[in-house]
Amino acid sequence: MYENEQKSERIDDLLSHNLRIIQSDEVFSFSMDAVLLARFAGIPQRGKILDLCTGNGVVPLLLTTRTKAAIEGIEIQPRLADMARRSVSLNRLEAAIQIREGDLRELVQITGHGVYDAITVNPPYMPLNGSDIKLNPHQAIARHEVHCTLEEVIQACTRLVRNGGKVSMVHRPQRLGEIITLMRANRLEPKRIRFVHPRAHMEANMVLIEALCDGKPEVRLLPPLIVYQENGNYTQEIRDIYGEVSKGDLQ
Amino acid sequence: MYENEQKSERIDDLLSHNLRIIQSDEVFSFSMDAVLLARFAGIPQRGKILDLCTGNGVVPLLLTTRTKAAIEGIEIQPRLADMARRSVSLNRLEAAIQIREGDLRELVQITGHGVYDAITVNPPYMPLNGSDIKLNPHQAIARHEVHCTLEEVIQACTRLVRNGGKVSMVHRPQRLGEIITLMRANRLEPKRIRFVHPRAHMEANMVLIEALCDGKPEVRLLPPLIVYQENGNYTQEIRDIYGEVSKGDLQ
Repeated sequence: MYENEQKSERIDDLLSHNLRIIQSDEVFSFSMDAVLLARFAGIPQRGKILDLCTGNGVVPLLLTTRTKAAIEGIEIQPRLADMARRSVSLNRLEAAIQIREGDLRELVQITGHGVYDAITVNPPYMPLNGSDIKLNPHQAIARHEVHCTLEEVIQACTRLVRNGGKVSMVHRPQRLGEIITLMRANRLEPKRIRFVHPRAHMEANMVLIEALCDGKPEVRLLPPLIVYQENGNYTQEIRDIYGEVSKGDLQ
Repeated sequence: MYENEQKSERIDDLLSHNLRIIQSDEVFSFSMDAVLLARFAGIPQRGKILDLCTGNGVVPLLLTTRTKAAIEGIEIQPRLADMARRSVSLNRLEAAIQIREGDLRELVQITGHGVYDAITVNPPYMPLNGSDIKLNPHQAIARHEVHCTLEEVIQACTRLVRNGGKVSMVHRPQRLGEIITLMRANRLEPKRIRFVHPRAHMEANMVLIEALCDGKPEVRLLPPLIVYQENGNYTQEIRDIYGEVSKGDLQ
């Protein structure tokens, strides 16, 4: 499958964890957003974890370094689900990670309600708004709400997570109002929020949110995560998260 | 009036603006929250501004340094409204500031709907929750939702601000979920949010939110405001806000 398209692929080291991942600039390459989500998310040591909009499987791969839980990823694009499955095989993680190809809106019909202890999701950030999208179809689907809206993602989380389970999301701060309103309208109470700022004096360009299904309303606002020092180098926290990446290919 | 109670009062300099303010540790003294709100709030240069829960009038007094608009403050505690009025007189700002004694939930019956261009509010932070309050009545009313809930404050803002007008609030980050949900349910769309962290590596203990009446949903997450440097001194930004306070009485 996809043999012609595989020509654009490369195999990258995935941080310092002796993991490798199949990427393609034309199709999908992971970003810092996914790395920070995989570090931030509240996850159990055992049980079942689900990653929605899993792309090339970067979040499930990284989560294997933090837990022994069974991890599932679901991705609507066959091309990306295939890449993710091949990355799982490449790392011999078939026992830990299962990749499904499918629509997150329909997953509950297969799995049943409330079967996951934790869910992670790095959804498309941009509403459609009828605007022209100057991206190829793979990139458009990953970045724009072509196949699912923010509301549909959050509704899927509520159906799939168990009472008391955690849902962790990375998104753009511009949509914070909508995210919080939709989560709370769907029984997901934000409990931990962290904003990511490119530099200490700049506005946030990323938000990490962990919500508890049927939690009580009280949220902790974690210290700001600053990406770059004023001299242009990564901050110590980002270096610690990325570990000893040798190739200088932080994205 | 209140002659016996005035014994606990003192007159403090209000930052570097040649303003003075009547305070009392037993009744009400302004905090950094009010100072940061008065600096953060989006306000017009002319027109009408309202400060809810005005206490001893600290926010109206500070706003006079930023605008020529007519400023009103409303306070439910007669003792505090009296202090605020006397501070206004002390600074000869009777033409700029009017202090009302009254209940913010009933103000619209006097003023009519949508008559203010901007509203500021530093409401009581703590829900009642049936818990014992170990404070004197003045302090309890200022800090706990004795006379009005967060929902009642936000509903009052929506009634009193004009379409396209701004509502700025300072509150505790713990209640961010409730604040955003209640604002958006009442036509107030958060547009600028800034978190205040005691130190760069600590969780936020204050949030500043500006909402636009009938705005579209897109919010800017401003750079974190850090209060103390790691060496325990105030950061330059806090020093700039407080100006040349000579008495070392930052609170």
